[in-house]
Amino acid sequence: MFSVNMAWTVQGVGLASIVALETHDVRFPTSQTLDGSDAMNPDPDYSAAYVRVLTDAGDGLEGHGFVFTIGRGNDVQVAALDALQGHIVGRDVEKTLADLGGLWRDLVHDSQLRWLGPEKGIMHMAIGAVVTALWDLRAKREGRPLWQVLASLSPEEIVDLVDFRYLTDALTREEALEILRRAQAGRAEREALLLREGYPAYTTTPGWLGYDDEKLARLCREAVADGFGQIKLKVGANLDDDRRRLAIARKVCGPDVRIAVDANQRWDVADAIRWMDALRSFDIAWIEEPTSPDDVLGHAAIAKAVAPIPVATGEHVANRVLFKQFLQADALSVLQLDATRVAGINENIAILLLAAKFGVPVCPHAGGVGLCEAVQHLAMFDYVAVSGTISGRVIEFVDHLHEHFVTPVDVHDGRYFPPKSPGAGTEMLRTSIVEYAHDT
Amino acid sequence: MFSVNMAWTVQGVGLASIVALETHDVRFPTSQTLDGSDAMNPDPDYSAAYVRVLTDAGDGLEGHGFVFTIGRGNDVQVAALDALQGHIVGRDVEKTLADLGGLWRDLVHDSQLRWLGPEKGIMHMAIGAVVTALWDLRAKREGRPLWQVLASLSPEEIVDLVDFRYLTDALTREEALEILRRAQAGRAEREALLLREGYPAYTTTPGWLGYDDEKLARLCREAVADGFGQIKLKVGANLDDDRRRLAIARKVCGPDVRIAVDANQRWDVADAIRWMDALRSFDIAWIEEPTSPDDVLGHAAIAKAVAPIPVATGEHVANRVLFKQFLQADALSVLQLDATRVAGINENIAILLLAAKFGVPVCPHAGGVGLCEAVQHLAMFDYVAVSGTISGRVIEFVDHLHEHFVTPVDVHDGRYFPPKSPGAGTEMLRTSIVEYAHDT
Repeated sequence: MFSVNMAWTVQGVGLASIVALETHDVRFPTSQTLDGSDAMNPDPDYSAAYVRVLTDAGDGLEGHGFVFTIGRGNDVQVAALDALQGHIVGRDVEKTLADLGGLWRDLVHDSQLRWLGPEKGIMHMAIGAVVTALWDLRAKREGRPLWQVLASLSPEEIVDLVDFRYLTDALTREEALEILRRAQAGRAEREALLLREGYPAYTTTPGWLGYDDEKLARLCREAVADGFGQIKLKVGANLDDDRRRLAIARKVCGPDVRIAVDANQRWDVADAIRWMDALRSFDIAWIEEPTSPDDVLGHAAIAKAVAPIPVATGEHVANRVLFKQFLQADALSVLQLDATRVAGINENIAILLLAAKFGVPVCPHAGGVGLCEAVQHLAMFDYVAVSGTISGRVIEFVDHLHEHFVTPVDVHDGRYFPPKSPGAGTEMLRTSIVEYAHDT
Repeated sequence: MFSVNMAWTVQGVGLASIVALETHDVRFPTSQTLDGSDAMNPDPDYSAAYVRVLTDAGDGLEGHGFVFTIGRGNDVQVAALDALQGHIVGRDVEKTLADLGGLWRDLVHDSQLRWLGPEKGIMHMAIGAVVTALWDLRAKREGRPLWQVLASLSPEEIVDLVDFRYLTDALTREEALEILRRAQAGRAEREALLLREGYPAYTTTPGWLGYDDEKLARLCREAVADGFGQIKLKVGANLDDDRRRLAIARKVCGPDVRIAVDANQRWDVADAIRWMDALRSFDIAWIEEPTSPDDVLGHAAIAKAVAPIPVATGEHVANRVLFKQFLQADALSVLQLDATRVAGINENIAILLLAAKFGVPVCPHAGGVGLCEAVQHLAMFDYVAVSGTISGRVIEFVDHLHEHFVTPVDVHDGRYFPPKSPGAGTEMLRTSIVEYAHDT
């Protein structure tokens, strides 16, 4: 007990330090069951490049974060996490957690690491995992779930977390402050409503391309029975198959359940327009990732041609600068935030603010490894403190791999119920990390 | 001798294989002299994540390639090269080199590795280095410099090297064929002219931000004396400094030498417009990288506002999909191809074809480590077989680190003279690889 007290004393005078950034290559053999199979990803092995931040505060609290990948290359993603050791280890815990906006800038604008992106790909995602791990630590120290930590910050504290570089032609700090101040009214009511009624979810579980028709029908039936108001089907490999599968889904689900489709970047612009014309009669909720996630102008052309079917994208959109352009160009009408694609919580706050500015609903991408656990915090923060609405919003839900997390999601009756445990939801069970460790 | 003969026999029947993909972390301590210092990169250590492809053909020929980085993170880039071992080692040499378009697709569209980009950042650049190393090997086996190897291919062979995925709304295979067929007339004359007179260069040597005024003036004088018709100055850190340095450069160079400026992504859109208004009187040849390389729409807004000053970008443009949009949106009027940013020779051919389609001059980015040696092959191929012109075109030249290459560039009288040695120009001296090996 003495040592614990000592450590608390040390922490009290601001002397606790980050002492380690421990990394792990964790891979689940999902390709064996074709969970996660789509037109571009026939056999993913859902994986996490995992990071654990340790301090000498003596409070037993750790920060956990990860980058979701689909197998090969997870080792390179881990190498990128390791490359951040020198930026993190040795930092003062209190000071670092009190200025995570400053930390974000230090990491993202490191002039040498920046060359490897800039602000995209493996290095950027590694920074995201470390930033999120530090938010996890901060939330645990505050004894609250991350969404409540964020939703209790003042508008000024929130904009301090955001880097407005390259955004000011679309969103200035002052405009962001206005959005946040407007949402201050009603924060408490929305938080209470959220705790009582949850946040709407949709499910992708029925729709993987590798499933046969019988399994598709069964999973559609189960989705409706479970209370989901929306499902999503993978499309884009074969038009006849897509028509047949959509007919099955529409018949099983009935006319009132929304059915979105997802092409996972399979098409060129003209292909996307042709294909969606052929699927129009199925009353499509949105077409997701019709083409390259870098192609803002391509998405804009597709959006115009397939209207009123909404275009959705985001899980592979590399950073806030690309999201800014998607919004400026009317190239998406459903913004699919991802928890581990951009540089962590801070950049996702920038993206939430951009979406609020342009009045576009955010429907986060989830599934994978721990993405449901992580992204719900952002959607709930958005509802309480940024957009102030859940209108037109749903969080993706895929029912796999939750059992590997310390605080798995609570999804029932077609809704996410807010996490109450302290942290960012990103902590994987020690036993899972060990059992699924990848040998290189 | 027996073993060598055996190997030749083996190669003759197509059984030679790639037996190793050897990687190196090579770093030059350039930050000590502030060579390469600009508004975003105060202290780069020019580095190469280096790859050597070995075969059992017994001909003593190897393929060499690299990714240029500026220091920290070069180890992560090397890890990405290592991750490609399984894709390369064991392949049949003849078959692989005969279908480098197919190899490119295998690597870029690997469904699991793709998740780490897609088609951008560390993994994409690693693929580029391996693809280029294989071109280096192919050119050495053919006994010719790469530019001549490429320029002797038929239009059909050239388009087979290109992946038109995500490009067809701007450039189809058929349109590319037309461009190449049109350029077939005059190939021989242009090749002869190139060998005789070289390809125009410009120099960035005088313009690094870390140099004092006296050094700037001296280097400007030397550039003019060396026959360069264009120089480039780094700008964007301080407007008064930029004005003073441009006045010095303009005075020393006289009115007939073109002076370009380079902000290295320092500005937001409004900053870029204001800053360039303030520099207008210096007769600016182009403004390079005014803002984020992902910001197509931002560049388009800047280009419109600063006209007639041309906007240039490319060294950080992640792939052909982004270049397509820059061209579609009139967001650049000088396209700065980079030898190691995209996925190697094949993707750069796609970019050359896009530029030809839109009638935009390509002025390659160079400098760094070996970029001059590498990129000249692409510019010369473009002149002979794609655009058919050098009008408005110049290749960047920076006079450092050439001594580390087996076939350093031949630049004199302000022009690049075509390499005559077999290969892609990407082979570093063994002694340099060893001497500058980075210990991790």
